[in-house]
Amino acid sequence: MAPVRNGRVIFKEIPTGYPEPGKHTVYEDSNTIDLDNVPLNGNVLVKSLVLSVDPYLRSKMRDPKEPSYQEAFTLGEPLYTLGIGKVVRSENKDYKPGDYVHGLMNFEEYTIPKHILMKVTKEAGLLWPVYIGAAGMPGQTAYYAWKEYSQAKKGEVAFVSGGAGPVGQMVIQLAKLDGMKVIASAGSEDKVRECKEAGADIAFNYKDVSTEEVLKKEGPLNVYWDNVGGPTLDAALGATATHARVIVCGMISEYNNKNGTNLKNLWTVFGRSLHIHGFLVFDLAPKWQEDFYKVVPQKIASGELKHREDITKGLENVGQALVDVQRGNNFGKKVILVADD
Amino acid sequence: MAPVRNGRVIFKEIPTGYPEPGKHTVYEDSNTIDLDNVPLNGNVLVKSLVLSVDPYLRSKMRDPKEPSYQEAFTLGEPLYTLGIGKVVRSENKDYKPGDYVHGLMNFEEYTIPKHILMKVTKEAGLLWPVYIGAAGMPGQTAYYAWKEYSQAKKGEVAFVSGGAGPVGQMVIQLAKLDGMKVIASAGSEDKVRECKEAGADIAFNYKDVSTEEVLKKEGPLNVYWDNVGGPTLDAALGATATHARVIVCGMISEYNNKNGTNLKNLWTVFGRSLHIHGFLVFDLAPKWQEDFYKVVPQKIASGELKHREDITKGLENVGQALVDVQRGNNFGKKVILVADD
Repeated sequence: MAPVRNGRVIFKEIPTGYPEPGKHTVYEDSNTIDLDNVPLNGNVLVKSLVLSVDPYLRSKMRDPKEPSYQEAFTLGEPLYTLGIGKVVRSENKDYKPGDYVHGLMNFEEYTIPKHILMKVTKEAGLLWPVYIGAAGMPGQTAYYAWKEYSQAKKGEVAFVSGGAGPVGQMVIQLAKLDGMKVIASAGSEDKVRECKEAGADIAFNYKDVSTEEVLKKEGPLNVYWDNVGGPTLDAALGATATHARVIVCGMISEYNNKNGTNLKNLWTVFGRSLHIHGFLVFDLAPKWQEDFYKVVPQKIASGELKHREDITKGLENVGQALVDVQRGNNFGKKVILVADD
Repeated sequence: MAPVRNGRVIFKEIPTGYPEPGKHTVYEDSNTIDLDNVPLNGNVLVKSLVLSVDPYLRSKMRDPKEPSYQEAFTLGEPLYTLGIGKVVRSENKDYKPGDYVHGLMNFEEYTIPKHILMKVTKEAGLLWPVYIGAAGMPGQTAYYAWKEYSQAKKGEVAFVSGGAGPVGQMVIQLAKLDGMKVIASAGSEDKVRECKEAGADIAFNYKDVSTEEVLKKEGPLNVYWDNVGGPTLDAALGATATHARVIVCGMISEYNNKNGTNLKNLWTVFGRSLHIHGFLVFDLAPKWQEDFYKVVPQKIASGELKHREDITKGLENVGQALVDVQRGNNFGKKVILVADD
């Protein structure tokens, strides 16, 4: 077969603020690929179906000399992310043409995955986008750490910051399934509504009301799921019950913070015997992945767990999607639909 | 038998700074007790042998309306602490005259314990003071939390702040028994020497050298045992290895801190998947107490675990001893020897 077009998104220039489409990230459609003859070196060739766009990708668009817990993207090379691909050709006996794989893949129409996490079988009634959202990494992030660290008990109180994000929404639902009272915060009225739709008993816009006062009234907190850090973390520490668990998923306010964070309530760590846990989802996978795929896709298919994806069609729109998730303009998990199955 | 003298130490006045003996804490020898007839109401009467003087007692010398994790002392009543007493008379079938009990007791020659923790049998070769030090609450604090949270592995690195205190010294020794490299900090040359005698590989005076630089050179840290909080905690967070454990025993710098603490390295909690644990020794007792009394007194008697007590004779000197531990003028665990066995 003759080579076919292989559109892709290149990391062209290091941004200082938001990454500008066409400048820092560039879609190229001039590239081609020979599907029958491209060397695989023991790997597989996949057709990209859906690719994930997440806030953390911004932290990879930097000078590789700056230290970070995330590896930097390489200038001139395609950006990459987690996605679902359909195997077209294989030199690995574990995967055969027609299999679906979940892994780390370039923003490319056809690609050799950088790393395959697993083979995926689709639950009846679900579409592929959900497998990089509620049934993918964000869902796993919420599920693994909730199961590992929350020690949730019926009737206890949980607070989730960033409650409208794909992780936050899953955490709200898991806490409700465990019989907890759930408080959630977000940064707009639309997002507050999202938190309520996910099941939060109390949801508020932290830009309009004092987090401290809401928590004083609705707490004390047995679990705090932290997506934001900074003053919200401090308010949550101040509102903890004895033996509370703090699960630190991320601290969006710390990513570009050179001045440090002032905590008035640090004493609660010993004064109230708190447990604070940072984690990386991949570290918890060996223990919880099997359980996750047994439970979550089925609960999503049955409607017991809700999910929402914000789908953008075509690799040519990746640049704008990257900016949208930085600005919080997405409404649900941002997914790039590259091709139909 | 006629009533006998029952000297005691009264909480007379709430101090603002250091508690002045004779003003805020007052020794009274005018009180008497009828050992045969004092009503016990189902409790026991003990002769006080040794009583513990600890920094945290200061936090109980306050207006009871100020919230704290410690119950306040009552004005006009005796101060109380952990101690060892010998049962003189008993209305409790679990204890008989001649038994030794470890519990919460007034600073009094004869007293009815507020709360008995347990009956104690002395290991051959040990003296009672060690049972409120290395084989008592400070030793238990170190042992329980180290066993529960350190996940110590041979060859890893531990940092202990406040390394010369009775808890810190035990932690240094437990870390060495687990085959770790141990860094310890303290606030004077004498105390640095104490840390080294306890087995620390590296010990330094944080007033003379930069904690940050020592940790940069000797780390990264797998375990940080925090006795102090503040900038030392921040430096330790900055020097952590991935998956490090931070055990927060106390934060002496936070006790009177109204301004909060600025942390530059808070991001390490998620960036390096840290686990931070606050705890109260009594919460961990059900799991570890039996193990502790099986292992620790025997290792102290054999010389495998070192200990040091700073003994003050007589209840009339309790006031000064309380000030000494606040100023850090004690050299080892401060113990009041009330009476010989």
